[in-house]
Amino acid sequence: MKLAFLGCGIMGVPMAKNLLKAGHDVCVWNRTAAAAAPVVEAGGTLAASAADAAREADVVFVMVSTPEAALDVAKAAAHGLAPGKGYVDVSTVDAGTSATIASIVRAAGAEFLEAPVSGSKKPAEDGALIFLCAGDESLYTKVKSPLETMGKAHFFLGDVGQGAKMKLVVNMIMGSMMGAFAEGLTLAEKSDLDPKTLLEVVSLGAIASPMFALKGPSMVAGTFAPAFPLKHQQKDMRLALALADELAQDMPVAAAANELYKRARRDGADDEDFSAVLKAVKK
Amino acid sequence: MKLAFLGCGIMGVPMAKNLLKAGHDVCVWNRTAAAAAPVVEAGGTLAASAADAAREADVVFVMVSTPEAALDVAKAAAHGLAPGKGYVDVSTVDAGTSATIASIVRAAGAEFLEAPVSGSKKPAEDGALIFLCAGDESLYTKVKSPLETMGKAHFFLGDVGQGAKMKLVVNMIMGSMMGAFAEGLTLAEKSDLDPKTLLEVVSLGAIASPMFALKGPSMVAGTFAPAFPLKHQQKDMRLALALADELAQDMPVAAAANELYKRARRDGADDEDFSAVLKAVKK
Amino acid sequence: MKLAFLGCGIMGVPMAKNLLKAGHDVCVWNRTAAAAAPVVEAGGTLAASAADAAREADVVFVMVSTPEAALDVAKAAAHGLAPGKGYVDVSTVDAGTSATIASIVRAAGAEFLEAPVSGSKKPAEDGALIFLCAGDESLYTKVKSPLETMGKAHFFLGDVGQGAKMKLVVNMIMGSMMGAFAEGLTLAEKSDLDPKTLLEVVSLGAIASPMFALKGPSMVAGTFAPAFPLKHQQKDMRLALALADELAQDMPVAAAANELYKRARRDGADDEDFSAVLKAVKK
Amino acid sequence: MKLAFLGCGIMGVPMAKNLLKAGHDVCVWNRTAAAAAPVVEAGGTLAASAADAAREADVVFVMVSTPEAALDVAKAAAHGLAPGKGYVDVSTVDAGTSATIASIVRAAGAEFLEAPVSGSKKPAEDGALIFLCAGDESLYTKVKSPLETMGKAHFFLGDVGQGAKMKLVVNMIMGSMMGAFAEGLTLAEKSDLDPKTLLEVVSLGAIASPMFALKGPSMVAGTFAPAFPLKHQQKDMRLALALADELAQDMPVAAAANELYKRARRDGADDEDFSAVLKAVKK
Repeated sequence: MKLAFLGCGIMGVPMAKNLLKAGHDVCVWNRTAAAAAPVVEAGGTLAASAADAAREADVVFVMVSTPEAALDVAKAAAHGLAPGKGYVDVSTVDAGTSATIASIVRAAGAEFLEAPVSGSKKPAEDGALIFLCAGDESLYTKVKSPLETMGKAHFFLGDVGQGAKMKLVVNMIMGSMMGAFAEGLTLAEKSDLDPKTLLEVVSLGAIASPMFALKGPSMVAGTFAPAFPLKHQQKDMRLALALADELAQDMPVAAAANELYKRARRDGADDEDFSAVLKAVKK
Repeated sequence: MKLAFLGCGIMGVPMAKNLLKAGHDVCVWNRTAAAAAPVVEAGGTLAASAADAAREADVVFVMVSTPEAALDVAKAAAHGLAPGKGYVDVSTVDAGTSATIASIVRAAGAEFLEAPVSGSKKPAEDGALIFLCAGDESLYTKVKSPLETMGKAHFFLGDVGQGAKMKLVVNMIMGSMMGAFAEGLTLAEKSDLDPKTLLEVVSLGAIASPMFALKGPSMVAGTFAPAFPLKHQQKDMRLALALADELAQDMPVAAAANELYKRARRDGADDEDFSAVLKAVKK
Repeated sequence: MKLAFLGCGIMGVPMAKNLLKAGHDVCVWNRTAAAAAPVVEAGGTLAASAADAAREADVVFVMVSTPEAALDVAKAAAHGLAPGKGYVDVSTVDAGTSATIASIVRAAGAEFLEAPVSGSKKPAEDGALIFLCAGDESLYTKVKSPLETMGKAHFFLGDVGQGAKMKLVVNMIMGSMMGAFAEGLTLAEKSDLDPKTLLEVVSLGAIASPMFALKGPSMVAGTFAPAFPLKHQQKDMRLALALADELAQDMPVAAAANELYKRARRDGADDEDFSAVLKAVKK
Repeated sequence: MKLAFLGCGIMGVPMAKNLLKAGHDVCVWNRTAAAAAPVVEAGGTLAASAADAAREADVVFVMVSTPEAALDVAKAAAHGLAPGKGYVDVSTVDAGTSATIASIVRAAGAEFLEAPVSGSKKPAEDGALIFLCAGDESLYTKVKSPLETMGKAHFFLGDVGQGAKMKLVVNMIMGSMMGAFAEGLTLAEKSDLDPKTLLEVVSLGAIASPMFALKGPSMVAGTFAPAFPLKHQQKDMRLALALADELAQDMPVAAAANELYKRARRDGADDEDFSAVLKAVKK
């Protein structure tokens, strides 16, 4: 099975390299060819266009950073798609965009899978991503081997849209947890408790989590280098609340956390890490 | 160093037995003597009263279930306290009660340590509790060996009251996290996503936590056997918010979560596990 | 100046009749002609189509109940519009729809005014509506006389979209107020205070309002006949919060109230009056 | 019936003067005698102590500014109380203090009425206060005439504590309304709508209220001279939420508004008018 990998950014490069390392035959393309260099060096072949890449491959993987880019790439690649081929978009896009891409791919006779990932740069390098898949189940079965190469887990969740929804649910919980954590750090500090001790106590008990362990020290230090930008976390809270709204389901904790992220955005934290919500609590 | 252990309930019995197992000399007392039997069988000597136990011991440990009981025990034990002795209350009480107990103990010339624990029955049995200590630091130093026997970690946090505050901060984060988790489970279910799959996805990622792993399956099953009763969780949210109020610090996420626990109490979940907050979200 | 009035529903009929009573020459149209009968009886002339009505009139007023209907009517009427004519949409529509209608009208060479009203059936009958106008100021000036006939006040707020925004702001305050009122009624009742006495106390003080005076007694009686359906109030909260989101402005009180309306919707109150939010607080 | 009036502050002076103007025989006392001068000039007789005033009068009215002062005055006045006399405390105190004062008064054989007022300086001068009475109903009946002199309405609400609760309910609604109003003003401004126009639109519709009319212009002007200090409003929100907590009743809108007042306090607005909550929304 020949693979194409479209999109060579922070996530795409290590993912494609992991595929190559595992012995897959990978044809690569990126809007700016220079970014594809590390993948070519690792043994990938460079395609002249997204359509060319699609033409050469049995299955196309796509990892780009915005819904707009995902749509553009799908339109371009569609010229190279055909019955028997598969198109797996592992970018994170909204349900509407995902449905549009599904239509484009299927109109070309190919199968479609949305497969947004949980995990960022480090898990991408370590082949430890989690794929939240939805769409054509036969394609899901077909791509198990590359998914196992790039990730530590993959789930099939149903029709197109369900992968995006699962990701929103997880990110909503994450956003509220981070808001709660920021409040706890602030209350500790104002109560003359050492926030570092709080981190240690938390790390030993029932609420310990990799996120608290990873973000806690930098939050205490007041540094917020963006691993996951705050504006994207707030967008996911908004979309999760909109999903809940459609379902007439109240989410008071998430709604309160969302307002906190909006407050942080008002104070200019859009491009900082989402843990900078601490500043909105503490100023 | 001779120890006394007052209070032989779900937590006290395994804690006292762990002390004996480690070779400590332990004199035990309980309001109803029968409950002390397992500790006596394990090698403890039974005291006729709290005062007698205090007279015989160098350091007294107390583990009872309410602030009222903690106060009663302190008043009774004080008759046996004297300079050179220490009194360590590992019960969870409010800051006011803790300060009163400190006064009683110190009026008798003894040293005082509040040391509320993080952890419940299982960690008590496994010697894996976490002690949040505050009060007389010299007593803290003196009791390191028994604390190490009963727990996996202990912290000295400052003046009397700081241990209680640390516990409130941790429980406040825990309460908000559980509220967020309950919302996530509900949103998943209403979005036709399998909540069990959500548990699995969560367990693999940055927000994985022992609490989600432990409580998730029973929440999905709709069972809420009380490990930590909901009314106590709500009480801790209320006290944490009151602490924040004194400090003029807003806590919007915790406040929203607190209202959710109040809603659950309105619906009659006082004595169920605090994870029953799920029912308030989902009905 | 010859007027057309499109849309003969609960609001449109009394508004058109008020125009006729004041001596205006009014041509009327409704999708189902029967509904236009009361206006024809009062002296209006019946047009065969929205386009015909637009052809005959200098200024067209439109009052329909949904954005979809407003758009359909605009498309139809556009065939009869021409330079020198004006088109005043007094329906409540979202900003996007209003902008689309503005384009359609202006493409036909006519001027456009969005003029959503504050006030419902009774103020429509009494000529006591409030018009929140935005769009072409020259048209605003031109229609002052009919606006004065139908309403007690009218404001010019700027470019197309500003009328809709003003209405959202007012309805957002209203929604939060009603949520607060519902909580107060519930707290009174649970505190063994007579809610009717609360209504009286409120009516005499600084927070007295026509809304509390009107809705309070039916809320205490537990009846919620829909003057303004709860689902529409919740939609306005959602849109106001979305507007705030675009502006990176947090609105924690409105967000909490919005969740309460969503809870009421979950409990099936979509088509009851928005004061039925009381049931979500009180159950 | 001879009256005593204890407490000659901003509220007490005009209230006592209104009693004199209506022909009542009033004996007056204040901790610092100078403040009583305006009442003496208006025809009151000055008592040497609270006890003396109580001895001379059939019914004692008390208006002081804190629960502590109310308690001190009651203790002092009790020496002059006796069976057949009445003691009416129109100060605003918490339920606990009110219950203590009731015990003190009744231990002296006298009857007790708590009667906190709704209304501030201007209504006190105009005899337009609202009295929320609770306690001994026979005393309520006995003091109708002076209450009618000082106020425009009075209610009997039941046992001691019910007056305080009614006041909390009203102030809780008021606090949430003000929070909602502050959010509306902010959203208007950020949407390029003139906040003054919003005030006008609000004043004409269903949500018009004396509070919005009075506070709106100063809020738009950014001035917050304290008529009702923000820290007191926040205290009332906190007490109302505590009352709801005891009753296991969730109040999500009030809880969100309370956090907003706490945020304003964090930013230093304790002693500004409670409408300064606008600054917490808008910064």
